Amino acid sequence: MFQIPRGTRDFTPEEMQKRRYVENSMRNTFQRYGYKEVQTPMFETLELFTVKSGDAIIEEIYAFTDKGGRELALRPELTAPVIRFYVDKLQMEAKPLKLFYFGNCFRYDRPQKGRYREFRQAGCEIIGTNTPEAYAELIALAYTILKNVGLKNIKLNIGNLDLLSSMFKKLKISRDKQKQLTPLIDKSQYEDVLTLLQDFGIKSKDADRFLDILQTSDIGKISKYLDGDETAKTELVNLRKILELLTKSFDINDFQIKMSIVRGIDYYKGIVFEIDAPALGAEKQLCGGGAYELIGLFGGKETSTAGFAIGFDRTILALETEKYKFPASKIDVYVIPLNDDMLSKALEVTQNLRRKGVSTDLDLLRRGISKSLKYASTINAEKVIIVGAKELQKDSVTVRNMNTGEQKIVKIKDL
Amino acid sequence: MFQIPRGTRDFTPEEMQKRRYVENSMRNTFQRYGYKEVQTPMFETLELFTVKSGDAIIEEIYAFTDKGGRELALRPELTAPVIRFYVDKLQMEAKPLKLFYFGNCFRYDRPQKGRYREFRQAGCEIIGTNTPEAYAELIALAYTILKNVGLKNIKLNIGNLDLLSSMFKKLKISRDKQKQLTPLIDKSQYEDVLTLLQDFGIKSKDADRFLDILQTSDIGKISKYLDGDETAKTELVNLRKILELLTKSFDINDFQIKMSIVRGIDYYKGIVFEIDAPALGAEKQLCGGGAYELIGLFGGKETSTAGFAIGFDRTILALETEKYKFPASKIDVYVIPLNDDMLSKALEVTQNLRRKGVSTDLDLLRRGISKSLKYASTINAEKVIIVGAKELQKDSVTVRNMNTGEQKIVKIKDL
Repeated sequence: MFQIPRGTRDFTPEEMQKRRYVENSMRNTFQRYGYKEVQTPMFETLELFTVKSGDAIIEEIYAFTDKGGRELALRPELTAPVIRFYVDKLQMEAKPLKLFYFGNCFRYDRPQKGRYREFRQAGCEIIGTNTPEAYAELIALAYTILKNVGLKNIKLNIGNLDLLSSMFKKLKISRDKQKQLTPLIDKSQYEDVLTLLQDFGIKSKDADRFLDILQTSDIGKISKYLDGDETAKTELVNLRKILELLTKSFDINDFQIKMSIVRGIDYYKGIVFEIDAPALGAEKQLCGGGAYELIGLFGGKETSTAGFAIGFDRTILALETEKYKFPASKIDVYVIPLNDDMLSKALEVTQNLRRKGVSTDLDLLRRGISKSLKYASTINAEKVIIVGAKELQKDSVTVRNMNTGEQKIVKIKDL
Repeated sequence: MFQIPRGTRDFTPEEMQKRRYVENSMRNTFQRYGYKEVQTPMFETLELFTVKSGDAIIEEIYAFTDKGGRELALRPELTAPVIRFYVDKLQMEAKPLKLFYFGNCFRYDRPQKGRYREFRQAGCEIIGTNTPEAYAELIALAYTILKNVGLKNIKLNIGNLDLLSSMFKKLKISRDKQKQLTPLIDKSQYEDVLTLLQDFGIKSKDADRFLDILQTSDIGKISKYLDGDETAKTELVNLRKILELLTKSFDINDFQIKMSIVRGIDYYKGIVFEIDAPALGAEKQLCGGGAYELIGLFGGKETSTAGFAIGFDRTILALETEKYKFPASKIDVYVIPLNDDMLSKALEVTQNLRRKGVSTDLDLLRRGISKSLKYASTINAEKVIIVGAKELQKDSVTVRNMNTGEQKIVKIKDL
């Protein structure tokens, strides 16, 4: 017997039913917001990912050399491929360009609940605008997608990397030292942040204040802390405007300011946000996004870009944790010929229903009526049609409602 | 600038629109026939494919070793993974089990029109039945899927590998010699078949007759040729029954018997079929399938299996060749605030429409009205809503029909 590769999954009909339901819901929301779907290859040149994320990413990537000697990699994420596509073929399109996508991604990671070696992402990019309304709409879209799939309990956090940079600047923390701090900040390991700040020679009082601001959700407090920093001032005006639009125009109130959101600080700029499903514990992050600069790095004409990615598998896990009632997998009708002579009439009835768009199956094993009824119940048939000689003489068949058990004789033409 | 890997493709919004349309149509037809969707990983252990198709397949596969030393391969087709899945986890499911799937596959092939290194397949397997009605239904399903997506000109050919084996037996052609013949038969290179038969010492008269039967579509003639062969007799009864059901119960008449269909003769058994789009020339085959035995080879309890695969990309190419009118990519409404003060009202109007399921976009660049109208036309907006101060005093906005140019004032609550 062959094993499935470690960290990957097969999806049963019941699981696929859920996945298609979630994907269709997400696609509908993207389209309602004026986004258009694109798709890129499953693998790219390895360099695309190392240029974006540094050589360290090779460790957690499925890289391989093709028979032509090209260094390729199964994509670990979708932003780099989509921006590569944009630079290559879409730079002349009218702006803003709103693109969304679904795709499987691959990471050579230690498998655990909510983390797989092959996983699915949904995401989008908006290219060519940096207005507060564009960012507010983007955040609202991410939030609405997760609400529309049926999630009840999600948490939206909004940060800003330019403000975080200003905070570092205020304490005169160098770029190198920032790089030591950001992973700890990202994981909310504030005691370790404090220790490191003290190692850097920052005064206890200043370090405490820094940590306080990292953890506050009070924009006034942040504003006061960064008073005098011109970049911060502009960003704070924009941030306030975004939050005001979210509340007033998008009717979204349950968000928090969180200055400790770091993401990929190398190419993210300004606004960043994350959406969590607290019920998922350690692997609770469902969505991450923000404004970033990547087009120039990939050889295109730099223009404002923002986007987000949603973990598709975790979204389903979160729905299951919330005991969400997915639409059941069912079939409308199951047709049973009472004997072999009824087969061709049974097929005719089946085909007529299918042509009308009714999902219909029929006995393909020439079983008896009781075995066929049992099978019909297994595949969750709503109705069973029994084709027998006596009823056929009157151009009729027996229709049985599988929920109520009720049976009646119906003319074939009235089915 | 980064290049897309050779032989792979990016899909623009217009192309994705076509692809989603075709995929949804195919999925609907599968479901109407009582099939349920499954999915397997993008890669498998390399051995899964060599056991099924022989070591030669390594030459045309993307194989790689993961960091744990496992030999893996990007899947070149979907039947082996799905049967692996069945043996692993689905053997206890009620029979017949009807599974369908969509998935990208990969072959290290010389790229050309209609042949890509990454391509998409649709397919299905029916496990646990070998009745003529099951096979007739399977063939009808493949045919109906292609008709339902909108193809006009397709050709269905039906063969039978047991009958082909009987033909070889009649001329006492050994298994080894069969293996030399079948690739030539598969490619309809009949002159080369004739030469080879003569090399094998087959009498000219017998070789001519063999070639005649290979090319006939007259089942009576085949029957006469194989008179006295008991296996052939049973298969011919079944084949006639399948064809009768196709004609009478499934209303499909435009098929041909074609004894030269070979496919994977190592694991295919009995009925085989192919559907071509003649307009595509050399790469005309859209679909291939039949009955096969693979479950035992993969360590499961052998049971009757049949299925088919449809080339998704070629189906789209065939539709384009037939100048099929795909549904156009459009957006329902584009909202333009006349100035910045109108922005928050414009967003409110936008959000209300989106909540009602209307796809709606709005100006996110604070452009003037004429630039915004041009953009609305670029993204194919059906209607434009202009939010201006004068109309707003009466809780109204201007609605412009982009096709007719007609404009009228509408109360916001009546939108």
